[in-house]
Amino acid sequence: MYEVKDWEHVFKLDPANEIDDSTLQQVCESGTDAIIIGGTDNVTLDNVLDLMSRVRRYTVPCALEISNLESVIPGFDRYLVPAVLNSSNVTFHNGLLIEALKQYGHMIDFEEFTMEGYIVMNPDSKVAKLTAADTTLSEDDMYAYGQMVNHFYKFPVCYLEYSGTYGDVTMLKTLKAACPDTRLIYGGGIENLSQALEMKQYADTIVVGNVIYKDLKRALETVKIKAQKG
Amino acid sequence: MYEVKDWEHVFKLDPANEIDDSTLQQVCESGTDAIIIGGTDNVTLDNVLDLMSRVRRYTVPCALEISNLESVIPGFDRYLVPAVLNSSNVTFHNGLLIEALKQYGHMIDFEEFTMEGYIVMNPDSKVAKLTAADTTLSEDDMYAYGQMVNHFYKFPVCYLEYSGTYGDVTMLKTLKAACPDTRLIYGGGIENLSQALEMKQYADTIVVGNVIYKDLKRALETVKIKAQKG
Repeated sequence: MYEVKDWEHVFKLDPANEIDDSTLQQVCESGTDAIIIGGTDNVTLDNVLDLMSRVRRYTVPCALEISNLESVIPGFDRYLVPAVLNSSNVTFHNGLLIEALKQYGHMIDFEEFTMEGYIVMNPDSKVAKLTAADTTLSEDDMYAYGQMVNHFYKFPVCYLEYSGTYGDVTMLKTLKAACPDTRLIYGGGIENLSQALEMKQYADTIVVGNVIYKDLKRALETVKIKAQKG
Repeated sequence: MYEVKDWEHVFKLDPANEIDDSTLQQVCESGTDAIIIGGTDNVTLDNVLDLMSRVRRYTVPCALEISNLESVIPGFDRYLVPAVLNSSNVTFHNGLLIEALKQYGHMIDFEEFTMEGYIVMNPDSKVAKLTAADTTLSEDDMYAYGQMVNHFYKFPVCYLEYSGTYGDVTMLKTLKAACPDTRLIYGGGIENLSQALEMKQYADTIVVGNVIYKDLKRALETVKIKAQKG
């Protein structure tokens, strides 16, 4: 369960959001395959360290999705490195990674890192604004991105991110058709089991995030996709 | 010899340059491992097609290094796809590739394509200007780029391009130290055997280009690196 390829369901916790101990316990003991810690704004060394150490009370695997250099700390089972493929700013293709390697390249275990080909699709999200992502992709564009990840970049993971809004299942289906050999992660706006099931038709891994903070019961129900598969 | 990993020495021919039949024959029958057709300016469907068909009189493998969409034609043994890692314009990271996939993605054999992590280092070269490459990389930067290609992007090939000028062997050595599992290609300014040998200490593959048009005899001598290796 320490490899992304083994994850069907994950919860993503934003270190900038408050979460009480009882909620965190229920999330960590829910049967989800992993906890991803990641966010866009106000991700700091302190709040990442705090959240990681609280998650570490439980046996669930814990991964950090890297969003800035300040908050990269040791102690995670896995580090996810997003390359925002539809960003118009090279910083979010490989610029942050180069800076990270200049600082930490001499001391890291490369086996713990997983490249994610990231496609950001909600124009109103913080991540789309930060990365100046082209969120106007057509289905043809989406198919081309999928082919690129699968056949050219050969990243282990492609992540379709609708951050904060429920995405277009047709786009997800198109992307999956183009990248059969790539682990496809879907994240964005999943608030109940039926939405999780809809996206799980095409995504290999479902990420559930914001609803944890709004309606824990519904969030926990989404873990049932693991039982209902196949 | 149809795979980049088998190439120790290649000649690169610019389709925008004139080359007479006798010169072309000597280049193709030199014992080089492959001919790469590629350039920056004035690479057109017509001149690529013309040069490829002339090279096809000989048995030497022939690859196209893709620089624009108009000049991509069938009939090559291999297609090299550069991602210019130190470009400040996302077009040269993945933008051209996305456009190519939208046009040709339905009909191409992905096995024929090889991704190259490209690092452009001569600020006065056409390719550096076109791609707005950051050619001011330090040795630490170069090492980080190598680690990125080897451990994160895991491209089969990393290409250090000093296009038109003889490069810094220390930079090449640094890059090789950072990417032990990646085929390292060096190109730029090699005009004689001793320069070819110097760069071959650290590069897995040496590219010889401009000197073909200036001093054929010296160009042909560089093929001797194949005999003198290890």
